[in-house]
Parts: sequence; C-alpha cells; structure tokens
Amino acid sequence: MKFKLLNKDGKARRGEITCAHGKIQTPAFMPVGTVATVKALKSCDVKESGAEIILGNVYHLMLRPGSELIEQLGGLHKFMNWNAPILTDSGGFQVMSLSKIRKISDEGVEFSSHLDGTKYFLTPERSVEIQHQLGSDITMVLDECVQFPASYEQAKEAMERSNIWAHRCKDLFKKREGYGIFGIMQGSVFPDLRKSSAEKLIEIGFDGYAIGGLAVGEKQEEMFAVLDYAADFLPEEKPRYLMGVGKPSDIIGAVARGVDMFDCVIPTRSGRTGQGFTWDGTVNIRNAKFRNDSKPLDEKCCCYACQNHSRAYLHHLVKANEILGAMLLSQHNIYFYQDLMREIRLSIEEGRFEEFRAGNITTDHQLPTTD
Amino acid sequence: MKFKLLNKDGKARRGEITCAHGKIQTPAFMPVGTVATVKALKSCDVKESGAEIILGNVYHLMLRPGSELIEQLGGLHKFMNWNAPILTDSGGFQVMSLSKIRKISDEGVEFSSHLDGTKYFLTPERSVEIQHQLGSDITMVLDECVQFPASYEQAKEAMERSNIWAHRCKDLFKKREGYGIFGIMQGSVFPDLRKSSAEKLIEIGFDGYAIGGLAVGEKQEEMFAVLDYAADFLPEEKPRYLMGVGKPSDIIGAVARGVDMFDCVIPTRSGRTGQGFTWDGTVNIRNAKFRNDSKPLDEKCCCYACQNHSRAYLHHLVKANEILGAMLLSQHNIYFYQDLMREIRLSIEEGRFEEFRAGNITTDHQLPTTD
Repeated sequence: MKFKLLNKDGKARRGEITCAHGKIQTPAFMPVGTVATVKALKSCDVKESGAEIILGNVYHLMLRPGSELIEQLGGLHKFMNWNAPILTDSGGFQVMSLSKIRKISDEGVEFSSHLDGTKYFLTPERSVEIQHQLGSDITMVLDECVQFPASYEQAKEAMERSNIWAHRCKDLFKKREGYGIFGIMQGSVFPDLRKSSAEKLIEIGFDGYAIGGLAVGEKQEEMFAVLDYAADFLPEEKPRYLMGVGKPSDIIGAVARGVDMFDCVIPTRSGRTGQGFTWDGTVNIRNAKFRNDSKPLDEKCCCYACQNHSRAYLHHLVKANEILGAMLLSQHNIYFYQDLMREIRLSIEEGRFEEFRAGNITTDHQLPTTD
Repeated sequence: MKFKLLNKDGKARRGEITCAHGKIQTPAFMPVGTVATVKALKSCDVKESGAEIILGNVYHLMLRPGSELIEQLGGLHKFMNWNAPILTDSGGFQVMSLSKIRKISDEGVEFSSHLDGTKYFLTPERSVEIQHQLGSDITMVLDECVQFPASYEQAKEAMERSNIWAHRCKDLFKKREGYGIFGIMQGSVFPDLRKSSAEKLIEIGFDGYAIGGLAVGEKQEEMFAVLDYAADFLPEEKPRYLMGVGKPSDIIGAVARGVDMFDCVIPTRSGRTGQGFTWDGTVNIRNAKFRNDSKPLDEKCCCYACQNHSRAYLHHLVKANEILGAMLLSQHNIYFYQDLMREIRLSIEEGRFEEFRAGNITTDHQLPTTD
C-alpha cells in the first residue's frame, strides 16, 4: 500500500493511495457498507457516484454471514461485487456501541451479539484474522473506544490498552503487496494522551493512522480543537483517517486540519429517513412545500435521482414509505458526498481551499430552517 | 390505439399494440406500479427488463398524491419518469378489496380511504377523468367486481351494473390518437353471464377487452374453465387482457386460451419476501441450502442480479433484511417475467407454443419442494 502526498494548501492535503484493488484520491469519503451492502444501493450505483473505496465492518460480518463463509466464497470484494478498495473497521467501536454484554481484558473483549445473544470473544489477533479472511485492502487495528466525556484515567487506560493491541495486530498482519494496516490514535480530548498514543503507534509503524475516539457525542468545536493539535502528531507521509465523520462541515473542517480520509453512515441513513444534502443546505423532503415542486433535489447535481426525478416525486415516495424513496435519496446523498470531495480536492489542487471552505462551511447547518 | 394480430398458434396469439407512448409486443406482462413506482425498482431497471408497458392505479393515486397534482406536474409518465405506455386500472377492484367502508349504487361507489379514512365517491365518470389527468395510454372502465364464489344473482347484478358503467365511461372518454379505453367482462363462472357481458361491451365498442372477476381466489382449473369459453366471446381483432394474473403457469395457460395481456404484483411482492422465479421452479432464497451457494439465482438469466451476484449473497441480504435484497430479487423477478413473455412470443411465432407450454407448465409449482 502506497501513499503519495501530491500537494498541500495550508494544512489541507491532496494525495493518492494505491491499494491492491485500485487507487484512491484523497481527501476521500468512504461510503459505509456495514453488512456487505451500502444500504439501498447496488454496487454499480456506488461506483457511479465516484466512490473509490468503501468500508466493511468486522463486527457485523463476523456475526452474519461469518468471515469464514465470505472467505470460502472468494472474499468480501467478490461476495458483494465491489471491485475497488475496501477498508474494514476492526469491530472495536461496534462492540462498545451495539453488543449487549461485554467484558474487556488485556486479552480482548467478550460480547454478546445484538442479533441473537451468541457470545463471541474478539481479540486483536482474531480481528486481524477476520480482516484477512475478508480480503480487506486496509486493515484497522482493534482498539478500545471510550465514551465522551471520559475521565483522564479512563482515557489513559483505554489508550494504553489500544496501543498494546495495536502492537499485537501489527505483529500478526501479513504483509502483502497492495495491502496495508492502519493504527488508531486514542486519548480522548487530552493532548498528552493523544501525543503519547501517536508516538507509540509511529514506533510500531503503520501504513496509515486513524484518529479514533472522536465523533462520539462531542460538539464540532470540541472535535476541531482535538484535530488542531492531534493531526500534527502524525507523520506527514502517511494517510490520516478520521473515523466515523461526518456532516459536510465536519469534513471540510477536518480537511482544513490535515485529514485525508473519512467514513460515515450519514448520507445513507439520512437518505432512508427522507433527508437530502444539497449545496444550499440539508432538506427534509417530507416537508409539505415539496409536494408540487417540479425541480430536482439539487439543480447542480448530476446524480441519477436529480437527472430523472423531481422533489415532488421524492416527496411522494417518502410519504408513501416506498423503497424507491430510500433508494433515490441514498443514491443522491452518496453522490453529493463524492461531489463534495471532488470539490475539496480541486480547491486544494488550485490553492483555493480556504476560499472554498469559507463559502461552504455552513452547508449542513440549515436543517432547522427548512424542516 | 391500434392492435395488429401478427399470427396465431392454436388459440395463442402474437400481436402488437401501438399507443401514444410506444409499441407493446403481445402477449405482454405489465409490471404493477401501484403508487407511481414499481416497488423497489428504478424506472431504468424496469425498462432494462424489457417491459414495454406498466400498470398504474386510480385508487392508490387518487388517494396519494392525488390525480390533480400529477396532472399539474405533467402527468404520470413524467411524474414517475416512465416514457413508455401506461395502462391504469380504474380503481374498481381496489375499492372492493382495500377500502374500509363502501356503499355501491348505480351512481357509483362511496368508500373510505384505507390510509386515513377520508371519504371518496368514485363514479365511472370520475374514474375516466382521473385516468385522463394521469395521461394513461390505456384507460380501464370502472367495474364492480364480485367475490369468489358469488351466487348467480350477485354475479348478474354486478355484471349488469358494470355494463351500464362501461357505457358511461365510454361516453366520457375523450378520443385521442394513440389513447384507448378497454371494457371489462364480468359474469363470474357463469357462461351465459360472461356471454351477455361480452355482447354488451362489444356493442358499446372498445379498443380492447379485459376479462375481470378472475384471479379472485378460484383455483387455476376453475379460471381456465372460464377462459376456455370466455375468450372466444371476444372479438379477434382487439387485444384481450386478463386482469391480475398471475403465476407463470397461469400466464402460459391463459395465452393458450387466447389472452394477450397480463398484470400481477407477484414478481415484485415475491421479490420483497425472498422468493425468486427461475426456469427450474420457484426458490425461497432464505432456505439454508443457499447459504454458501456461489451460483447465480438462475444460471440462464441475464438480469443484473444474476450477472453480478450469487445466491449466497442474496440469501445473506434477505436474512439481514437489507433493502438491496428486495431490490435485486424484484429486479430479477421482473426480468424473469419478461423473459417468460419473450419465450412465449417466440414460440408462437415459430409455431411451437404447445411444445413450449408442455415443457414449462409446472414452472411455478415447485415452491413446496425447495422451501
């Protein structure tokens, strides 16, 4: 796995990752394909949006259908018919947020499936093994996430355990041409913990570094305050990935602080609840004012939904609970997010990222006024 | 609206309908787009299946979003982005089967919406007006359907009222190049009532004739017994449409008895419940034996789902309740039905329909053995 830093505009970075299954232009947004599907979208629709990499999830896939089965069927790329890079989350975050019972020890984490209560024991080694079975281009280390807010002691303990786990993950990871493994920085909102976490991870040596423990309930300014210093702890020549982020303004603000990669369920989850992203702000398509609106969702958008359907039609579909409503809005939102990344990349290339940022910083803050 | 009878093979007919929005090769199967969407499918996916006409529904569309709104937005074709012919059901059947309260008089039928209880009064004139607002290529007359079984008296009364309504619909229907109106034969399982219904409709004069009051709970052999004589009451030079039918073997058997057009929710509804149609029979993709089956749903099928995904993947999606499961199975089933019609048409053209029929008559009877 290779990363080329192409150019910079302030702290904002324009780069290119080369993986076994293809190249990724950064800053990049990765649609989330939790259960081996980006929800309500065919893989060709995801491809058409311009997405060059998607996210898979160890936790969900180990429960159903099982990583052994996916391996037997030729790996996750083949299983879900996605022929571009896949990054897989290690399962750490989902074990904490979704599973019913858990016991964390230095050895690993014991949890019960949220689906049927079956007990599992996830260790750093098992997580890496599962990601190997899935055939992930980018493997994530298993980490322990703390809630927000966390005490200094809680954050320190989880960070130290995460670093030990990161070491064990790296040890087990099989080096192969085009495949990489990322470490995950923890430390909550405490600069010295973030610094110590980063130093330890760099010492172990990874192909990229994720910033974990953010987007867990803190305000945007709190997240940005951490990014203001934390990104600088990471090596210039490796990609930086802010996990689980976020809204358009979160992404723009994080790019301004030197982040290269993002993932979030927002575009698809919003699509299933009737929310659409546009360059003029977020709209709730259920709003009665769209009932007879013959304009496309976003007049500047080239996605299938905007090229072929009106707001009035989307409004009707969502009000009638039709699957097609979720499909079209998800497709639009995924496309919008890729458009956003295309514009971000272009503005960095052309040395006008700050101008772009100033013009779009509030894109996602308009929901209350249109709902 | 024109109908050309191209050739015959026994009673099976090969024809072509020309409407305002295009040509339809018959025998034809019309996917059902009840609420201005063929459920879980984009209009481009429906087009890709080879479907040349779809069905819209007066009852559903008058309740939501309303025919005036659709007219204001340019008609149903534009509203749902379907640029080929549309036939609209008159609402008679849905009023009987879905709405909560109803009073039928010679004037029309009063009912309460199954959505919110709002009262409506649907007359033959209002049904034709709504279909005009929608812009239907083929308008259906309002009819009164009786349950199965119905007494001779019930069937006679409903048939006579339907014939009077048919007259009023025809009177109000605005003749325009490429647009047509179909009468609907009633009479339940009583040959003399079927005959009298057909004679009256022919006297009024329609662009095509539907056979109503079947597929309402009777067995296949009972339906075929009616078709054995009823189709012969209809004029050779006009298309014949068997409403709400059916499974593949229903369609094959009805084509053998001289029917040209069909519609049914089976392919899409089955798709949303994990059932797939194949040339080797119907399969329930939830069945555990598909868990690690890397073959496509139907190895002979050229649809998107079969070209890109395995049974194991479909099994996984359906078990995980993923929208994509409903999407892919619906797309396959719609494609399979169009394939079936293509094969039927070809076999009639080549004078080997009976041979085709003998080889496929049991296609849909295998569900119990694979479930």
